[in-house]
Amino acid sequence: MSNLLNSFIQTNQPLIEETLLGLIKDIKAPQPLKDAMLYSLQAGGKRIRPLYTLAVLKELDYQNEDALIVASTIEMIHTYSLIHDDLPAMDNDDLRRGKPTNHIVFGEALAILAGDALVTIAFGIIARLQNISPQLKVDLIEKLSFSAGAEGMVGGQVLDMLGEGQTLTLEQLEEIHVNKTGALLSYSILAGAIIANVPGEIMSALKKYASHIGLAFQIQDDILDVEGTSEQLGKTAGKDLKSEKNTYPSILTIEGAKKELQNQYNQAFQALENVQMHNGLLVEFANYITKRSK
Amino acid sequence: MSNLLNSFIQTNQPLIEETLLGLIKDIKAPQPLKDAMLYSLQAGGKRIRPLYTLAVLKELDYQNEDALIVASTIEMIHTYSLIHDDLPAMDNDDLRRGKPTNHIVFGEALAILAGDALVTIAFGIIARLQNISPQLKVDLIEKLSFSAGAEGMVGGQVLDMLGEGQTLTLEQLEEIHVNKTGALLSYSILAGAIIANVPGEIMSALKKYASHIGLAFQIQDDILDVEGTSEQLGKTAGKDLKSEKNTYPSILTIEGAKKELQNQYNQAFQALENVQMHNGLLVEFANYITKRSK
Repeated sequence: MSNLLNSFIQTNQPLIEETLLGLIKDIKAPQPLKDAMLYSLQAGGKRIRPLYTLAVLKELDYQNEDALIVASTIEMIHTYSLIHDDLPAMDNDDLRRGKPTNHIVFGEALAILAGDALVTIAFGIIARLQNISPQLKVDLIEKLSFSAGAEGMVGGQVLDMLGEGQTLTLEQLEEIHVNKTGALLSYSILAGAIIANVPGEIMSALKKYASHIGLAFQIQDDILDVEGTSEQLGKTAGKDLKSEKNTYPSILTIEGAKKELQNQYNQAFQALENVQMHNGLLVEFANYITKRSK
Repeated sequence: MSNLLNSFIQTNQPLIEETLLGLIKDIKAPQPLKDAMLYSLQAGGKRIRPLYTLAVLKELDYQNEDALIVASTIEMIHTYSLIHDDLPAMDNDDLRRGKPTNHIVFGEALAILAGDALVTIAFGIIARLQNISPQLKVDLIEKLSFSAGAEGMVGGQVLDMLGEGQTLTLEQLEEIHVNKTGALLSYSILAGAIIANVPGEIMSALKKYASHIGLAFQIQDDILDVEGTSEQLGKTAGKDLKSEKNTYPSILTIEGAKKELQNQYNQAFQALENVQMHNGLLVEFANYITKRSK
């Protein structure tokens, strides 16, 4: 990891942790519900999504007091999706980031409700921000809703379920991932652009960059599931293969997947180059995403 | 039911059905997910919440082209909460409004995701409306989020779970219901007031009215569980008693519950009287809520 990116992450990760904690600890809700929400929020994720929002703003040299909060709401949505994905009726995972999953600790009912509470509060938190205009808040909420919902993440999750046990084409696999992982990751990049109210040309470039990074992220995830160890990943490695899940390596071979990863990286880089944003944090972030080991 | 209210419901219920269908059928999402969302949306509820929003607007003599859509998003949130409440890990209900529950028809995983999709899309639909100002949309979204989330409906659901098998005080029971049922029902009344951008005095009166109606609705629900038949209710009657659930009749006796219902009705009526809104639809609605037989 470059010094630039490393120092950016070291600075901002603790701020995100602090913001997430602050947003939940003051709400007037039953303590067990808050505990369940906080347990998964504080289970030690990499915070890639909120960091991405902040990285875009830093790259654009734009400051806004509410940026950290907007960034943190994306982590809430991501966390809710993990809690629900891990449920017995879904992926039935006992372990997430090396710790027992939410329903293992709090029981299924509270895990479902903690997820529900996280997705619901995210929109309200954006709505009540003081330093972003109503029009931009509405824009953030609209994009977040459609990225996270039936037309995005939830839809991708359904496609993924429907595809289990079937042999998919590369196109079908891509459709799953563009929605399941790509949509929210892309939103985290666009959220920064929305807050900064960038001109159309920059928005288009960042959209293109975001869509390639969204796919690259998932391809690397699939590669790691084959090549990583459970210890590195903090979750059961090799699970995709065992469950006969369609992945980039299973469709393209591991070499083909790596080639496709490089292809997505190149296109993301190209998008940045077109608007002279290829010398800073965003290209570092693209490197990080495509070369991470967990 | 009065002619005024009856004709209002007969006119608006089909419009709500049509709006709900229209909002879901055009989204770009996997068909099984849309089917699961539509199944529960179209399972024949009374549409009390969206009707209430429209009733407030009619009473205020205020027209807005997006009112039906705002009203319908409340029904989406209500429907998602029913789908999740019915899950095996929660209330484990097989029957809802006389039909098999969502997870019985579509399986647990899709039921969880259909609920997730409904709550998520509601906020995006409000955000993209064309005929309401950004400031009022933000206001609607903020209030909806907090009414539906950890500080409202979801929090009430958790309190309800935690109270099971315990003997609660009337105060504790009220806290559960103010959140679990009252918050979203109250929001449906306030949503009309927000759209019409009413002056503070009217807003305060409607807030007071809304909070008493929210409780009255739940008290009548508890009374119906004792006195109604399964056929009337479209769900298993007497279930509260069997599961040793705390209800108004169990704490206050059935006569005490009826007295408390009348008390809440009187206070709701008083709030309307204070702003000369006690001769129309809203008092009819209060009558309907407190005297309904299902």
